[in-house]
Amino acid sequence: MAQSFRKIINDPVHGFISIDSKDIFEIIAHPYYQRLRRIRQMALAPLVYPGAVHTRLLHSLGAYHLTGLAIDELKKKGVEISKKEEFAVKAAILLHDVGHGPFSHALEHSLVRGVDHEIISLYIMEVLNEQMGGKLDLAIAIFSGKYHKPFLHQLISSQVDMDRLDYLSRDSYFTGVSEGVIGYDRILQMLAVQEDELMIEEKGIYSIEKFLISRRQMYWQVYMHKTVLAAEKMLVRIMRRATEIYHDDDLQLKIGGPLDFFLKGFKGKMTRDILDKFCKLDDNDVIFAVKKWANHPDNVLSKLASMLLNRKLLKCVIQSQPIDEDLLEEKKAIALKKGLFTSDEIDYFIFKGEATNTTYKPADENIQILYKNGIIKDIAEVDNALISSTLSIPVKKYYICYPKECK
Amino acid sequence: MAQSFRKIINDPVHGFISIDSKDIFEIIAHPYYQRLRRIRQMALAPLVYPGAVHTRLLHSLGAYHLTGLAIDELKKKGVEISKKEEFAVKAAILLHDVGHGPFSHALEHSLVRGVDHEIISLYIMEVLNEQMGGKLDLAIAIFSGKYHKPFLHQLISSQVDMDRLDYLSRDSYFTGVSEGVIGYDRILQMLAVQEDELMIEEKGIYSIEKFLISRRQMYWQVYMHKTVLAAEKMLVRIMRRATEIYHDDDLQLKIGGPLDFFLKGFKGKMTRDILDKFCKLDDNDVIFAVKKWANHPDNVLSKLASMLLNRKLLKCVIQSQPIDEDLLEEKKAIALKKGLFTSDEIDYFIFKGEATNTTYKPADENIQILYKNGIIKDIAEVDNALISSTLSIPVKKYYICYPKECK
Amino acid sequence: MAQSFRKIINDPVHGFISIDSKDIFEIIAHPYYQRLRRIRQMALAPLVYPGAVHTRLLHSLGAYHLTGLAIDELKKKGVEISKKEEFAVKAAILLHDVGHGPFSHALEHSLVRGVDHEIISLYIMEVLNEQMGGKLDLAIAIFSGKYHKPFLHQLISSQVDMDRLDYLSRDSYFTGVSEGVIGYDRILQMLAVQEDELMIEEKGIYSIEKFLISRRQMYWQVYMHKTVLAAEKMLVRIMRRATEIYHDDDLQLKIGGPLDFFLKGFKGKMTRDILDKFCKLDDNDVIFAVKKWANHPDNVLSKLASMLLNRKLLKCVIQSQPIDEDLLEEKKAIALKKGLFTSDEIDYFIFKGEATNTTYKPADENIQILYKNGIIKDIAEVDNALISSTLSIPVKKYYICYPKECK
Amino acid sequence: MAQSFRKIINDPVHGFISIDSKDIFEIIAHPYYQRLRRIRQMALAPLVYPGAVHTRLLHSLGAYHLTGLAIDELKKKGVEISKKEEFAVKAAILLHDVGHGPFSHALEHSLVRGVDHEIISLYIMEVLNEQMGGKLDLAIAIFSGKYHKPFLHQLISSQVDMDRLDYLSRDSYFTGVSEGVIGYDRILQMLAVQEDELMIEEKGIYSIEKFLISRRQMYWQVYMHKTVLAAEKMLVRIMRRATEIYHDDDLQLKIGGPLDFFLKGFKGKMTRDILDKFCKLDDNDVIFAVKKWANHPDNVLSKLASMLLNRKLLKCVIQSQPIDEDLLEEKKAIALKKGLFTSDEIDYFIFKGEATNTTYKPADENIQILYKNGIIKDIAEVDNALISSTLSIPVKKYYICYPKECK
Repeated sequence: MAQSFRKIINDPVHGFISIDSKDIFEIIAHPYYQRLRRIRQMALAPLVYPGAVHTRLLHSLGAYHLTGLAIDELKKKGVEISKKEEFAVKAAILLHDVGHGPFSHALEHSLVRGVDHEIISLYIMEVLNEQMGGKLDLAIAIFSGKYHKPFLHQLISSQVDMDRLDYLSRDSYFTGVSEGVIGYDRILQMLAVQEDELMIEEKGIYSIEKFLISRRQMYWQVYMHKTVLAAEKMLVRIMRRATEIYHDDDLQLKIGGPLDFFLKGFKGKMTRDILDKFCKLDDNDVIFAVKKWANHPDNVLSKLASMLLNRKLLKCVIQSQPIDEDLLEEKKAIALKKGLFTSDEIDYFIFKGEATNTTYKPADENIQILYKNGIIKDIAEVDNALISSTLSIPVKKYYICYPKECK
Repeated sequence: MAQSFRKIINDPVHGFISIDSKDIFEIIAHPYYQRLRRIRQMALAPLVYPGAVHTRLLHSLGAYHLTGLAIDELKKKGVEISKKEEFAVKAAILLHDVGHGPFSHALEHSLVRGVDHEIISLYIMEVLNEQMGGKLDLAIAIFSGKYHKPFLHQLISSQVDMDRLDYLSRDSYFTGVSEGVIGYDRILQMLAVQEDELMIEEKGIYSIEKFLISRRQMYWQVYMHKTVLAAEKMLVRIMRRATEIYHDDDLQLKIGGPLDFFLKGFKGKMTRDILDKFCKLDDNDVIFAVKKWANHPDNVLSKLASMLLNRKLLKCVIQSQPIDEDLLEEKKAIALKKGLFTSDEIDYFIFKGEATNTTYKPADENIQILYKNGIIKDIAEVDNALISSTLSIPVKKYYICYPKECK
Repeated sequence: MAQSFRKIINDPVHGFISIDSKDIFEIIAHPYYQRLRRIRQMALAPLVYPGAVHTRLLHSLGAYHLTGLAIDELKKKGVEISKKEEFAVKAAILLHDVGHGPFSHALEHSLVRGVDHEIISLYIMEVLNEQMGGKLDLAIAIFSGKYHKPFLHQLISSQVDMDRLDYLSRDSYFTGVSEGVIGYDRILQMLAVQEDELMIEEKGIYSIEKFLISRRQMYWQVYMHKTVLAAEKMLVRIMRRATEIYHDDDLQLKIGGPLDFFLKGFKGKMTRDILDKFCKLDDNDVIFAVKKWANHPDNVLSKLASMLLNRKLLKCVIQSQPIDEDLLEEKKAIALKKGLFTSDEIDYFIFKGEATNTTYKPADENIQILYKNGIIKDIAEVDNALISSTLSIPVKKYYICYPKECK
Repeated sequence: MAQSFRKIINDPVHGFISIDSKDIFEIIAHPYYQRLRRIRQMALAPLVYPGAVHTRLLHSLGAYHLTGLAIDELKKKGVEISKKEEFAVKAAILLHDVGHGPFSHALEHSLVRGVDHEIISLYIMEVLNEQMGGKLDLAIAIFSGKYHKPFLHQLISSQVDMDRLDYLSRDSYFTGVSEGVIGYDRILQMLAVQEDELMIEEKGIYSIEKFLISRRQMYWQVYMHKTVLAAEKMLVRIMRRATEIYHDDDLQLKIGGPLDFFLKGFKGKMTRDILDKFCKLDDNDVIFAVKKWANHPDNVLSKLASMLLNRKLLKCVIQSQPIDEDLLEEKKAIALKKGLFTSDEIDYFIFKGEATNTTYKPADENIQILYKNGIIKDIAEVDNALISSTLSIPVKKYYICYPKECK
């Protein structure tokens, strides 16, 4: 019995994840990928959902697993997918998040301003490709949407891609929010390809509705939870304050690790050298810094850091209408009167803003439904569908944060 | 409708955990307790089971929850438990693990030599008790086994305590090892108290058998997994090496945080001052150090650190018989011949030892079965029971670790 | 330890169901209630979802269990519910479905024309009340909506009652349609009472949305599944045909059991005597009859019976618009041309109609949301809610059934 | 996109079951197979576990599904299995239980004395094979153990066959006894073939242990539950009594269905004609009879029938030692004294016997473990294994049944 290469990884969400290609295993074993063990998928959400401490590594593996199942399904239905294409799309989904930095979205525009994580993912793929002698050429083409079979890209990135299928299932599993559970096995069974585009068979409409609803529920109940939002905004202000007061000889500020470079205020073009530094960063650097800064002489920095560390979070209100300027001033007046902060400090603790869905990518592409008779319809046009304006996640919400004492 | 105090925490394992006492909430909100957010329950096990990144905080909350259910159950059966006792036992279970340091068992005897985590837990409880004006007096008495109703202590610490019930369920859930799933709800229903001792009703025998089997399965398949063991031994060696070569002015070794104090080699008596330092430590300090040390000039330290960081682990073999000295020497000879290490370094990379169940407490107490007719029997004496010598977890195994190249 | 009365029933959906009242146990043990063991909750749905063979007995027990949890929850929140009220509402929910006949909704208006199952449930409760010496007086008052605390009735019958909470969870569990899974534990935690009306706390809005969506999904995917509908319509026609051709001396038609009485064509007032006959009927009588009639000389009867028995079902199309009369005639023409039926028989095999949600009660009451500040709003008025016209289940659909051969 | 034949069946245990062969579908659609919809897998167990009403049809489909997964797994490992063999083994597992009569094991030796259900299954397969033009030749050879690749037969019938894997999972799911849950996905991953024999890879030892333990737990907690046993013995006595008093013109005894033939007391050789009669029997015939006989003038018959119908079951005690003759006499004396029965009747209500595992086949074959180095060991010889004499299910237990009033 000729036994081929095979590694099995235990995943509480999908059961067993099989790795049956040495090249895939090489990617997983690479330090760039192993770094994802140290970056939590849900950033600060565990402050509200303490189980949600799962990592980007496991999410990527899960999305890789679902992609494998989707490919098997499509092949059974007669869609032609070559061995090379299969490897490429699996490698691409495995690496789709490799460019995330610590605390992902929360810090995406704080640490590395002006560079999206997708750009960094692509950059890292190119470096890996070099090391692997061009084996990732096709993966990169598919990831970038440049391959002539769009459905392969759509498995990685579209309204119903394997990324979302995995993170919704996974985030539900680890938060314990059963509202987010989706029937991903049924959705997989309903995948089809027509004219090289990914679509959903007619019978899958209710499953897709359920999927969209679950996404909506998770969005409001988890991803945009007011307490999580408050914590994220606090972390952003901590990093911003640290950058503002950065001095090369402030040893109480410097960490003695790769984070120091980014505290100087990086902005602009990513070079290979900076990429190397970036790839050393993970959540631990940030937490370590926050712990250290809780004792920094700067009052704003130490106060914010110690509040975040000990979960003494700002109160946060989220609403559909813009926050009244008067309300903000009122809260500030109370704080000043109570002597909680000086007027210089106050903007770090009492502030308002727009809460956009930075965490998870907006939805501008369509879901196409394939009918038995060959007709294709956008799901929004389907007779009797629930999908309406109410379902698309609103672009904007408004929030205000202030200390609990400012009632 | 008079609404009393109530906080709800989402737990993917038990559903909702209700906190309905302000004093309990105060304990949870304390920085000592919040620190447990940053200590993983299963230390290095996520290197093999990537989902198993759950924290000691959530485990403690889970054990607290089960204790509440157990008390409700016992009360329904007519056992008298006062409000004060109920609070005390709940506070005690909540704090039973508060004395754990980073990477728990793995580092228990490296960082703080000579002091068990139970001692530290008790110390922290006393400090908290002071701050809470004596409210924890009874909790401490129960925790220490000094209260006149042993069953209250047994809920916290015995063969079938709420600690084990929670961690087996939880570790199964997060690893995805379904073999460890236990029917904890049935066990809870079978709890009884006779002569102030906790026991299991006759009908619960099969559930208890299942519980013991699950524990055994988790022990061998997860807690004593050879790869996890290798990683733990490597981490112990990293800390030991760092302590050995520690110099006050080695800035590449020092971390700039609370860990530095313990690297000097603490041993001996815990004082209040040292306790404060200890309570600042968490997993992040250790990971941050390992990341930093991967570039330290000391070859042993940097090599071990970088191996652990990038999951290039030593190979590990576990067996029932002691490891043959010859095998060890053979592996060393290969390593030296291949030039992998110098002879000074070799003991850090090729070594053998006894693997005892350090992770989870040994079982020397009994499980008592209460028959309908009032008779009490030890489970080991039960007719037809599976419980036999094979079931009690062996105290010792033997292991050898060496680099993969030394085949 | 004084052990009080306690029986535990295993339920795969809710875990353990505790019966801790002798009077409740007496109800369960009564032959009227035990009869529900022999009536399937989902009638003919197992022809499509083969796991969905669960009984009305287990559903009633599950609804009883959830009612107990809801009462515990409300009490914790300070709602006053006396021991007597608690027993009454539990007894009422336990008996809410006791008046169902075989194949429930499918045959509700075939066997016992003009009498709803709620009427029969109430009648049976009264008979039981007599036997139990008036112990069910209050239960009957609550069931009939005549008690001065409406929330007790609303637990049994309202938009978010324990009946629905149970059957949605249960039907999902046994069909395997994960889309129907609801977070019932969260909904229970969100129950509140204001001015004696049952309502949902503000934080529970998303859970309620999820509940309504799940109901919608189950409705279309399961309860109104076209194949299940076809089978139900066939069973109705089988019973109707048997009634039409009934003769007292047709021994191939008569069953030799309680069904015979109803085949004579009962219509009108339920008497105590007829109730006794009714309470002897269950699914087995009907299946036994269908098996027997598969060999009856009447061609229509035997053909329909044998088709249903062997799952050779009519094809069914469901749509939002009324079925075109021409389509019906076209199908009939094909059938006649192919010689499938005579023109006398054809209406039994090719027919159209309106498919109304006969299975599960329509929703005309509201769900009220209780805000923290005491304000009460109907869920339809809630800002940003998904609940819109699309969500309310349409009253009507149209269907046509015909043999597969008539393409 | 060429869509091939495909039917999907919802199964709450395994998710989706795909039927992708027209011949397999033809078998499923056959009335012989559809009959299994009307035979419950667990006979009278729902009297104790009310959820356990699942059918033999769904179990067979589940076993078919697992067999498909096992074959995929073995093929991935390089085991050669031809398309023809794959169809054959799938057809064989699908039909492995087709010869079961109503209430399966309970009535196996009452209705059809002297003929095992396996013999009938084989007979039915042969009839089907005739109808299908010899397509089942190979399936029959494999089922009968006459094919030259034993592992194909072992997938259907051996210590770790797909039949057991399915029924343990399924019976756990529907009873709600979580102790029986097995990690069947892991076991499937551990299957291997060496020298044409089915074996388990070394890494699967703990999973197999878990499987054996689960089987043991289910055996004692469910399959041999004393109340279920009592009900089965009562049903056997009901059928025996009916047979004893059978007269061709006793219209209160005769059912007017296929059961009547067997009440005359069939014994001996199965002919094609009798097979046809047998294949018309299902659980409904028996329940219908029990309902009818509850009013039969024979006191023994009507009393037993009405007790079973209304769940007024005999008390049952099970023990390892033979029941003392004195105890039996004592119970009888009490009954006679209380006037519960005449001395003619008493043996039907008070009796003792040996309880053997009639429900599930005994285990006389071995489980072979395949080590990485190619060595094969029986699991009983594995170092440190739990498998010992205590694990093998005891052949015999002893029971006594008597009315509750005879205390």
